[in-house]
Amino acid sequence: MGMTMTQKILAAHAGLPAVRAGELIEADLDLVLGNDITSPVAIHEMDKMKVDGVFDKDKIALVLDHFVPNKDIKSAQHCKCVREFACKHEITNYFDVGEMGIEHALLPEKGLTVAGDVIIGADSHTCTYGALGAFSTGVGSTDMAAGMATGKAWFKVPAAIRFNLTGKPAKWISGKDIILHIIGMIGVDGALYKSMEFVGDGIQYLTMDDRFTIANMAIEAGGKNGIFPVDELAKKYMEEHSKRPYTVYEADVDAEYDEEYTIDLSSLKPTVAFPHLPENTKTIDEVGEIKIDQVVIGSCTNGRMDDLRVAASILKGRKVAKGLRVIVIPATQQIYLDAMEEGLLKTFIEAGAIVSTPTCGPCLGGYMGILAEHERCVSTTNRNFVGRMGHVESEIYLASPAVAAASAVTGMLSGPDEL
Amino acid sequence: MGMTMTQKILAAHAGLPAVRAGELIEADLDLVLGNDITSPVAIHEMDKMKVDGVFDKDKIALVLDHFVPNKDIKSAQHCKCVREFACKHEITNYFDVGEMGIEHALLPEKGLTVAGDVIIGADSHTCTYGALGAFSTGVGSTDMAAGMATGKAWFKVPAAIRFNLTGKPAKWISGKDIILHIIGMIGVDGALYKSMEFVGDGIQYLTMDDRFTIANMAIEAGGKNGIFPVDELAKKYMEEHSKRPYTVYEADVDAEYDEEYTIDLSSLKPTVAFPHLPENTKTIDEVGEIKIDQVVIGSCTNGRMDDLRVAASILKGRKVAKGLRVIVIPATQQIYLDAMEEGLLKTFIEAGAIVSTPTCGPCLGGYMGILAEHERCVSTTNRNFVGRMGHVESEIYLASPAVAAASAVTGMLSGPDEL
Repeated sequence: MGMTMTQKILAAHAGLPAVRAGELIEADLDLVLGNDITSPVAIHEMDKMKVDGVFDKDKIALVLDHFVPNKDIKSAQHCKCVREFACKHEITNYFDVGEMGIEHALLPEKGLTVAGDVIIGADSHTCTYGALGAFSTGVGSTDMAAGMATGKAWFKVPAAIRFNLTGKPAKWISGKDIILHIIGMIGVDGALYKSMEFVGDGIQYLTMDDRFTIANMAIEAGGKNGIFPVDELAKKYMEEHSKRPYTVYEADVDAEYDEEYTIDLSSLKPTVAFPHLPENTKTIDEVGEIKIDQVVIGSCTNGRMDDLRVAASILKGRKVAKGLRVIVIPATQQIYLDAMEEGLLKTFIEAGAIVSTPTCGPCLGGYMGILAEHERCVSTTNRNFVGRMGHVESEIYLASPAVAAASAVTGMLSGPDEL
Repeated sequence: MGMTMTQKILAAHAGLPAVRAGELIEADLDLVLGNDITSPVAIHEMDKMKVDGVFDKDKIALVLDHFVPNKDIKSAQHCKCVREFACKHEITNYFDVGEMGIEHALLPEKGLTVAGDVIIGADSHTCTYGALGAFSTGVGSTDMAAGMATGKAWFKVPAAIRFNLTGKPAKWISGKDIILHIIGMIGVDGALYKSMEFVGDGIQYLTMDDRFTIANMAIEAGGKNGIFPVDELAKKYMEEHSKRPYTVYEADVDAEYDEEYTIDLSSLKPTVAFPHLPENTKTIDEVGEIKIDQVVIGSCTNGRMDDLRVAASILKGRKVAKGLRVIVIPATQQIYLDAMEEGLLKTFIEAGAIVSTPTCGPCLGGYMGILAEHERCVSTTNRNFVGRMGHVESEIYLASPAVAAASAVTGMLSGPDEL
């Protein structure tokens, strides 16, 4: 019996010739990630374990991004804790205000995640790096603590589902539409503790930013990870961003998959997840009249250059609907700078949107656009759970940057072809 | 006995030939201002008064700036209250996310405040508009409510102190250094309930932004208002920004002043207010070694183009000190756009600072850079009270943008000549 791509990476990191789904293994870690919410918990766990040092100061990434620049005294204290830890242990990849960005956009950009890596992060959306052919998954703060101390983590080897992406997506169809379509199809527990392995000729039409978006939301289908084959585009990305060597793993031809789906990308329409689960999807022609109060374009899911470019292309020369608040959040300082250089930020401001400094901000109800009672937001973020962006009686509609930008213009949940 | 400039404006608005210090008068209002903190209180007061309408929908300005884009559910609910009130009463000058800016930078920019006006605002720093030769002062939310309902307000006519500004300030000496010097000289209650009238040949060397900064901080000396004569520069500013007619009032030659000070601007040095009062001033050569954690450049005091230009001129080609967080906050969307067009924002980002969307943010401990225990911030804001920017054991050093930018480079409280 052959191995999936994920299984091959795990076997190599466990020093085993082969692993099988369900097997418990201990794997070497290439990177351990934490943010300003989870790292303080992990640091306190390390204190309790009476562990004095970290396994490798170059293989830990601490990113202050959730409530940063500090939203309140509590978040300021948390950041201080992380800062002092990073200083004490001389953590190479510590990112504070000024160097920062949203962790899952920042790490690939900084070249810290490459194909073949095993990465854990104390954040659900750590699965993002699967876009580069890495095995990466979210863990709790205790696992992060153990990872920082030992450089190893226990995993139950996941089974897998294969998603065969075929055909060329139409204009406006992005990675977000693809992953929302998939989650709508299989449900929020459709890939529970499984690898979502994406294959097929349709991948050639997906930019790296599309792939990051898709892998990022694997967790929203319950996936342990999402992973893409390493093609020339992925190699080019890594060569441009990283000095680290990468290793390409390919699934065996006889790898076992619990299920297999074929998705014809050319048939997809802009897709929106209605409150209060990412699986509540409708295509844009089915959404009806939904008046909205706010639009958010950003997050680890959709705050990259492709996302800002498509949003700007729609907002260029247009105005935000009266009474609507539109918040654009470039995911990293570099993206902010690049978007400024390309004139995208000017387009946003002139349209009547505001541009925030990089932060997770409203996505998880942190700050920078929290919703009041009965308010509705079209958001390019990844979760639309009850109360996630504010009041329990508010609503989040997850969508692509194209749909978000079109909705910004109309003040209603809208597709770009309706303009 | 003649009248001061302030007294002349108040007499005209009370329909009286003359007023004297200490007299109680009722004056017509040209503008009533509130923000997202104070307006909800005023709106509830109006409800309690059973007042149904506003006196003039064109003479009320509601600006969402303090905790906006909404920092949390509570601020979201407050903004919703203001938004609904603005909608119901068709308030012309309602500024929400996208059109917004910090109120005291926004209103002059939008041409809503001109010479000869009487303006009340439910915010301490409403005194800013004195830079244009208006009488403007901060009031409580109940007065704001009464003002919105009736278009009138009761005042005790203030006595006055005259500040004779002479000579030309040296390079790097800005409005902030002048007003900090004055507050250091007379104390935080030195002008209690008095007009601070600025006169003298030195005014010709002050830009409008310098004057806004000085008038803005009149309240930090306890002043009822701060006011400048209306010279050609002020007229030019109003003609460029406003379609409203303005009226120039001049103090009588025999106007009575409780005190008079002459300040030789050419002798001033960069001046810093140490914790925890704006009167605790030292010149930059007296400050000693103060290691800092954060720099904030922004606020209604110092978030205008002059401020950003001088900060960028210092940060250009330099890097923020390691371990320091530097937060730049253009005061309005227009300033943000202008600063972007001039390349200033690029300079900040490349230096390692972050640029926030316009907001009061950290100035009053709102968000966007709250301090942890024992942290120190050099800030261009207006108040350094205990715990104002975060933890009660944090410290704020008030300074000019030049000092803030120089400190950003060194990581210590520093003057620009130390670079």
